[in-house]
Amino acid sequence: MEDVVGRSKWEIDTPALLVDLKKLERNIRRMADFFKNRPAGLRPHFKTPKTVEIARMQLGAGAVGITCAKVSEAEVLVEGGVMDILIANEVAGRAKAARLAELNRRADVKCAVDDSLQVAALSEAAAQAGVTIGVVVDVYVGLPRCGVRPEEAAGLAAQVAKADGLRLAGVMGYEGHVVSLEDPDERRTEAEKSMAALVQAAESLRAAGLSCEIVSGGGTGTYNVSGVFPGVTEIQAGSYCLMDVKYAKIMPEFEKAATILATVCSKAPALPGWTVTDAGMKSMTREFGLPELIGVPDTRTVLLSEEHSQLQTEGGESGLKVGDKVEFYPSHICTTINLHERMYVLENDRVVGVWPILGRGRSQ
Amino acid sequence: MEDVVGRSKWEIDTPALLVDLKKLERNIRRMADFFKNRPAGLRPHFKTPKTVEIARMQLGAGAVGITCAKVSEAEVLVEGGVMDILIANEVAGRAKAARLAELNRRADVKCAVDDSLQVAALSEAAAQAGVTIGVVVDVYVGLPRCGVRPEEAAGLAAQVAKADGLRLAGVMGYEGHVVSLEDPDERRTEAEKSMAALVQAAESLRAAGLSCEIVSGGGTGTYNVSGVFPGVTEIQAGSYCLMDVKYAKIMPEFEKAATILATVCSKAPALPGWTVTDAGMKSMTREFGLPELIGVPDTRTVLLSEEHSQLQTEGGESGLKVGDKVEFYPSHICTTINLHERMYVLENDRVVGVWPILGRGRSQ
Repeated sequence: MEDVVGRSKWEIDTPALLVDLKKLERNIRRMADFFKNRPAGLRPHFKTPKTVEIARMQLGAGAVGITCAKVSEAEVLVEGGVMDILIANEVAGRAKAARLAELNRRADVKCAVDDSLQVAALSEAAAQAGVTIGVVVDVYVGLPRCGVRPEEAAGLAAQVAKADGLRLAGVMGYEGHVVSLEDPDERRTEAEKSMAALVQAAESLRAAGLSCEIVSGGGTGTYNVSGVFPGVTEIQAGSYCLMDVKYAKIMPEFEKAATILATVCSKAPALPGWTVTDAGMKSMTREFGLPELIGVPDTRTVLLSEEHSQLQTEGGESGLKVGDKVEFYPSHICTTINLHERMYVLENDRVVGVWPILGRGRSQ
Repeated sequence: MEDVVGRSKWEIDTPALLVDLKKLERNIRRMADFFKNRPAGLRPHFKTPKTVEIARMQLGAGAVGITCAKVSEAEVLVEGGVMDILIANEVAGRAKAARLAELNRRADVKCAVDDSLQVAALSEAAAQAGVTIGVVVDVYVGLPRCGVRPEEAAGLAAQVAKADGLRLAGVMGYEGHVVSLEDPDERRTEAEKSMAALVQAAESLRAAGLSCEIVSGGGTGTYNVSGVFPGVTEIQAGSYCLMDVKYAKIMPEFEKAATILATVCSKAPALPGWTVTDAGMKSMTREFGLPELIGVPDTRTVLLSEEHSQLQTEGGESGLKVGDKVEFYPSHICTTINLHERMYVLENDRVVGVWPILGRGRSQ
C-alpha cells in the first residue's frame, strides 16, 4: 500500500478513501479559530475520522481533548497517546466497564451515565482496577435516545459523587435531532432550547453543591450556536474535519475534504447512458442519500449495489470508458469511513501518506 | 477473544455477530441436497459469509466451487486453499488484473467481462504473469448493471477465445432484480425469463463454434427455479447459509442462522416505553429495513443511530434493564457481515469457535 506514496491519486487502486490534506487542515484551523478566545472549548468527535493522525492534528490546533463513541475507539486513542477523552455515551456491561477502568490507568477517559445500574457497574470496575473514572451525567435534550430529564440530573449526579472510584465531571447532552435541520433559524432556535435544558441541568448540580466542570454538547451543524451558549464548556463536533454532502448543504464554511475514488468497471452495454463503477454499498453508505459523483457532466449516481454504483447520463453518454477513474463525495462520512481500512492523504493530488483507520469496524 | 470458547453466548461482549452452527449446517445441507443428482451444481457466493470456514463446509457438502465478488475476496479464498473460484464480476483496472493473474499461478480464478477493454487488460496481465485466466461473458438478463445483451455475447466471447492468456469458460447472468420479489409466481416467471436470455447467449456461443462450459446465474431467491432451468450449469446463491429477515420472508426452507447480540445501554429514562442498545448502524445495516428484535414481547426496533438501536414497547415497558442482552436478526446479512471482524459460532448457545471474517471490509 505504502508504495503509492509520491504517486498521483489516479494510480491508487479502488475503491479508496481519499483525503485532501490542505482542506482537512483548513477545516481544522477554521473550527479551532472559532473557539479561540471563547469560554467554550472544542473536543472533536473521533467517531468521524477514527484516525489517530487527525486527532493529533486537532489537539495540536488547540482542542481541549477528544470525544469518542465507544470503548474500542478510546483504546485506539490511548494507544495513540491521547490523554483526555470523553466517551460521549453510556458504557454497557461489565466487560466494557473493566476495559474502561483499565484505560484509566494510563489516561483520563470519562464516560456518560443515565442510570444507577451504570453507576454501580463503573464504581465496581474502578474499585477492582484501583482507578478513578470521570463520569458525566447524560441529559435528555430532545434527541430520542439516552439521557435523564434535566430535573433528574442532580439526583443521578449525587449518586456518582458518592460512588467509590468515580469522579463527577459534569453533564453532557447531544442535540442530534437538531444538527441536520436545513433551516438555519429553526436550527438555531432548537439548538438553543437543547442547550438551555443542558445548562439548566448543570445549574441544578451546582445548586445541590455538586461540581460540574464539563457541560458538553453540540455538533458540526450547531457549533456556532451551542458553542456560544452561556454555560456550555465543550463542543463535540466530528464531521467538520472531513465533511460530506449532507453537512456541506448547511455548513458551507467547511470544505468537503474526503472523497471515494472508484474505477469504471462496466459501460453497461445493454443500458444506453449508464456507467458502472466498483464502489458500492460496501464502500459508501447511503442512509443519508446517494453519494455525489464529482465533475462528470449531466451524470449522477442513481443506484448502489453491494459492490457497484450505477451512474446515469442525461440525454447521452458520459464519455467515461472502462478503466477510467471517478470520484464521489460521501453522503454520510461517519459511516462511510467505518467501511475503509485506510485513508490516502493527498497534497496537490499526490499521495503524501497512508493513514490506518484504526478505529473503524471495531464493533465491540 | 478466543477465551470465550466454551462459555455461554450471553457472556460475549457486544455488539457481536453470532452464528448457530446447527442451523448453518442444516442450511448448507438443505441446499446441497437440492443440487444432488441434478444437472446444475451449486457454487456458493462468498460475498455473504466472507469466512473461509464456511466456504470449506460448502465445498465439503458438494459445491462445485466458490463464487465471489472481487479480487480481495478471491485472495482470501486462495489463501484458504480454495482452488476453483468465479469472480462473478468485471475486474476493473490494471492493478487488479495483475493481482488476478497472480492468483491464477496457484488456483483457477475466473472472472467476467462485458467490454473489449477488459479483455485486453486481462490478456496483458495474463501474458505478463505467464498464466491463463478463465473468463465468462457477463450477459444482461434484466438487472440494471453490467452485461452485454444476449445477442452480443458470442461476439465478445470470440474476442476472449482469440486473446492470448485467456480461456473462454462460458457465460454468466445474475437476475438480481428478481431474487427478492415477494410473489412466488412473479419470481418464477421473471427468473425463467432471465435464464432463458442467459441460455440463449450460451447457445449462441456454441452455434459460433465457441466452448461454453459454465452457464452461471441464480441466487437464494431463485435457486429452485434457475437451478432447474435447462442449460444452466451453476447457481451463485450466497445468503441461504446464514439468511436474514428479507430472505426469510420468501425462502422459509432456510433458517436464520445469524444474529446480532447487543447490550441494553440505556433505559431512555426520559422516554417511557423506550430501550436503547449498543448495536447501531456501525453493527447492523438498514438498507433493507430495520433489524428485527427477537423475543421481547410487544417491543420492536424503531430507530438506528450510528452506535445505538432504539426499541419501543407498545403500551408499557419492555422489562429490560441496563446490562441485559438482546438479539436481532439482521435485515441484510451481506452488508451486516461486512461490518464485523469475527463471528462467534454457537452450539446450544455455547461458543464453540470464533471465525475471522477475513473477506470483510477490504474495499480494494
